[in-house]
Amino acid sequence: MSASEQPSAVVLLSGGLDSTTCLAEAAAAGYRCYALSFDYGQRHTAELTAARRIASAAGVVEHKIVKIDFDGMGGSALTDASIDVPESPTEGIPSTYVPARNTLFLSVALGWAEVLGADAIYIGVNAVDYSGYPDCRPEFIEAFERMAALATKVGVEGHPISVKTPLMHRTKAEIIARGHELGVDYSQTVTCYQADDDARACGLCDACRLRRAGFEAAGVPDPTRYQPDAPQS
Amino acid sequence: MSASEQPSAVVLLSGGLDSTTCLAEAAAAGYRCYALSFDYGQRHTAELTAARRIASAAGVVEHKIVKIDFDGMGGSALTDASIDVPESPTEGIPSTYVPARNTLFLSVALGWAEVLGADAIYIGVNAVDYSGYPDCRPEFIEAFERMAALATKVGVEGHPISVKTPLMHRTKAEIIARGHELGVDYSQTVTCYQADDDARACGLCDACRLRRAGFEAAGVPDPTRYQPDAPQS
Repeated sequence: MSASEQPSAVVLLSGGLDSTTCLAEAAAAGYRCYALSFDYGQRHTAELTAARRIASAAGVVEHKIVKIDFDGMGGSALTDASIDVPESPTEGIPSTYVPARNTLFLSVALGWAEVLGADAIYIGVNAVDYSGYPDCRPEFIEAFERMAALATKVGVEGHPISVKTPLMHRTKAEIIARGHELGVDYSQTVTCYQADDDARACGLCDACRLRRAGFEAAGVPDPTRYQPDAPQS
Repeated sequence: MSASEQPSAVVLLSGGLDSTTCLAEAAAAGYRCYALSFDYGQRHTAELTAARRIASAAGVVEHKIVKIDFDGMGGSALTDASIDVPESPTEGIPSTYVPARNTLFLSVALGWAEVLGADAIYIGVNAVDYSGYPDCRPEFIEAFERMAALATKVGVEGHPISVKTPLMHRTKAEIIARGHELGVDYSQTVTCYQADDDARACGLCDACRLRRAGFEAAGVPDPTRYQPDAPQS
């Protein structure tokens, strides 16, 4: 535990709907929150602008944006401009899967958590809507936790850092309803894989479809700002 | 397995003695080698220059240098200039321990291995001389492998990527003797934590002491270039 009585947590914050709800959950659970974002050449840099605003509005203790230049490794529609972003639902593991992305993000979070003396890492993974991604499943998170306990000084000394996934088993509608209850301002969040420079959503990609359907199912007005040519709901 | 008949491996290459020997082991085992280095603000950037030369001399298929800017996270003598590099042997976990470093390096290697269709990752960790680092132990590597099998598309599909640690149980002298046998040119490798701009070693830090003692014990002439004011062996 950190020097203060209140426990601390590193919260992975992409600027999207899920991670923003996750940050609200960490704060509601009583953690001092440290937000962590990544700038890795993703197409939707609008997310980073959103992440900065969200972290600031949430009053996090600190917000770090770790920049990674993969030196042209490629491999996913989210970082490789030669792969198309899918505009219809896909089966199996989608092309937007970034190899080992959550492993990498959690690894950086683990290092920072150890430096900070934090007790937990929060990650907004979800096995319901995104079950195609292997690194969003509970068995992956549990294996990461076991590995982390062996990887770190604090783990070896008997104080392993836990990985919290409050969104794991919720539908998109349940996530939105809960975030709404916690006062999350979803107009600030960016979900779209191809948001424009003004952070407006396309309304066409998988992520936009899931998000829009989630607001409808939750009975919460959709505050998303869409591009002028986006389809009407 | 990759398109060709020959299996491929991603080899973590710091430019130091251990990782260079590890690369020679991967090549000797018949792998097509892809070298992976990191530029993360470490003090000894001389290592990166060394890594480039070593990768080129070894004829690797490709060498990537992934750049990471931790946005001032700090935490170790190797990246934080306010922490002194120890010049005498330490007990327990040394101050040169970088939180979760091997977890992070292996995560990036895992992502690249998946993109490449590689079968293995090679890492030159060693539990003998560096037993103070939790992430250099066999139990950590095994836990990482289990996690990786659940994290990746190839793992879920039944072709997990293995993590090879040929140096794990060797003394420094045994590593040097084996590398010498494989034709490794150790004059190109940089081990020193505070090498100068010309990549010459200080002869004083823990890493230098272990390295020098290793050459002596192996009965192999030490080709290390030392700084003019370094102590004589």
